[in-house]
Amino acid sequence: MTAFHRRPVPLSKAYRLLNHGPTVLVSAAHDGKRNIMAAAWAMPLDFEPPKITVVLDKSVWTRQLVEASGTFVINVPTISQVDIVETVGSTSGLEISREKDLDKFSAYGLTTFQGEVIDVPLLEGCVAWLECRLLPEPHNQGQYDLFIGEVVAAHADERVFSEGHWHFQGHDDLRTLHHVAGGHFLVIGDEVTGDVLKRK
Amino acid sequence: MTAFHRRPVPLSKAYRLLNHGPTVLVSAAHDGKRNIMAAAWAMPLDFEPPKITVVLDKSVWTRQLVEASGTFVINVPTISQVDIVETVGSTSGLEISREKDLDKFSAYGLTTFQGEVIDVPLLEGCVAWLECRLLPEPHNQGQYDLFIGEVVAAHADERVFSEGHWHFQGHDDLRTLHHVAGGHFLVIGDEVTGDVLKRK
Repeated sequence: MTAFHRRPVPLSKAYRLLNHGPTVLVSAAHDGKRNIMAAAWAMPLDFEPPKITVVLDKSVWTRQLVEASGTFVINVPTISQVDIVETVGSTSGLEISREKDLDKFSAYGLTTFQGEVIDVPLLEGCVAWLECRLLPEPHNQGQYDLFIGEVVAAHADERVFSEGHWHFQGHDDLRTLHHVAGGHFLVIGDEVTGDVLKRK
Repeated sequence: MTAFHRRPVPLSKAYRLLNHGPTVLVSAAHDGKRNIMAAAWAMPLDFEPPKITVVLDKSVWTRQLVEASGTFVINVPTISQVDIVETVGSTSGLEISREKDLDKFSAYGLTTFQGEVIDVPLLEGCVAWLECRLLPEPHNQGQYDLFIGEVVAAHADERVFSEGHWHFQGHDDLRTLHHVAGGHFLVIGDEVTGDVLKRK
């Protein structure tokens, strides 16, 4: 179903997929291993070529896969996936794989599709995906856990994102999640427009 | 009115003021000059001591004030301030000050109060404020327009943020803004909770 609604997003508009500050899922793969984790600390960093930045703690396995492969995907999940977000944000893919030879995707029945440009699994059911190549910055990665990526392909669910704009009305089940703490999320609401004030 | 509801936020919880990805206003001051601008690209970077990061384009005057003073404030505005956000995001404080010896605050009738720790104006009517000291990173600032600050004091409107959590219900006029593009914003909605799934 999702594939049916998935459309490419021009790279010049890719920043708008993260501009409103959603919590994201970071997926990565290397040498036959793959993982996915939640990250509230992600944002656009440049327009074109589009860059994004995301914080990956030293304790997470996804970080190792990103550093080894030089690629990752930012998936933008929805309210319908809130339990998936909480689950992949509070479990260790490395522990699961060591215990049972499963990864998080198979352990929790998560369906994926392949990236268009990079070899990383993208999560079905999300509303946006940004395929990224790591721009290595050893100081930022070591000092701040801050990873910078160049977006090399972007996709979105046309039901809620088209012509460079989000339009969630009528699709409450596809609204993005914005993490507060400990399993508590806020859901994005509707649009409002600002006008430039007259100067005194 | 705002001052009446303003409460200090413990530094250990300061990241939660930005965790859900609101568009912010960055204010700064140096040598008798002051300015304020909108920024959609801001996020937490560490828990404690709390750090945040924000993108400040080379063309903006606020950036010069931040670099000169080594301090800035992240203000979190509300839907009631959407015209203010659009205005300070699309006008140049430097041009205004050159033309009429006004700054953006006086030109648009914006009320401020002083920081508790740093000497920067904070905007009244916002729902959260983070006073920051710049952690100079010349490579990030030059290459990516990326500025990192340590949060040295934080405040929030207790009507919508207390005990480390946002609670906007009953205060629709105080909901945070999340910029898409060109004067179009999404407003934050209500809370939803995620549960950890059972493993297969």
